[in-house]
Amino acid sequence: MSEYEKAYKPEDITRLFVERANKGDATGVAELYAEDAVVAFPPGQITQGREAIRKLWEMAMTRNPKFEPEEPLPTLINGDIALTSTPPKDGTGARAQVVRRQPDGSWLRILDQPEFIQPK
Amino acid sequence: MSEYEKAYKPEDITRLFVERANKGDATGVAELYAEDAVVAFPPGQITQGREAIRKLWEMAMTRNPKFEPEEPLPTLINGDIALTSTPPKDGTGARAQVVRRQPDGSWLRILDQPEFIQPK
Repeated sequence: MSEYEKAYKPEDITRLFVERANKGDATGVAELYAEDAVVAFPPGQITQGREAIRKLWEMAMTRNPKFEPEEPLPTLINGDIALTSTPPKDGTGARAQVVRRQPDGSWLRILDQPEFIQPK
Repeated sequence: MSEYEKAYKPEDITRLFVERANKGDATGVAELYAEDAVVAFPPGQITQGREAIRKLWEMAMTRNPKFEPEEPLPTLINGDIALTSTPPKDGTGARAQVVRRQPDGSWLRILDQPEFIQPK
């Protein structure tokens, strides 16, 4: 059983992401994603699945990146699907994530476009 | 029955949107949205439902706006949900749309964030 705090609002994921990424907690970051989630990263590539996402973060965290909290746009919700999005501070264009409500009422990311830079 | 071309790939919607918007066809644009779709427009507000979206476009088209085709990022797909996104040419930050596969295999928009500007 996971002991991580769950996201009971879509925008909780955005906050928990920054908290866990700044602690270097790759497992905690991966827990914010659905088992079959798809992330458009590294640039020009796709990472699919929670375990692959955890490994991606484990690798990224060896460089000790720091994330600033960024003010997201208002969440758009349609039934059990929501779109969270953020104009980022770091010049990567934008971030957008699709989150899905789970049977227990919490939300997980199913699709993640962390930057809006055209792949070369 | 609608005689409009359907989108059998998520990115078709992006293309059909520009074609129909430039013809001033508000009904055709609205046909790209699900009955319960949610659009973050006008700025700082929400428009919900295909008929409300059609009216929004009918009003917007009295100003005869012209849309340039913009190159979208690769579509992210997870089952019947996909995320389409575009770094826009017009300085509005970004565009992101969630599209859902319909029982006939075509796709409709269910959530639309047409610009990434923080509401005041």
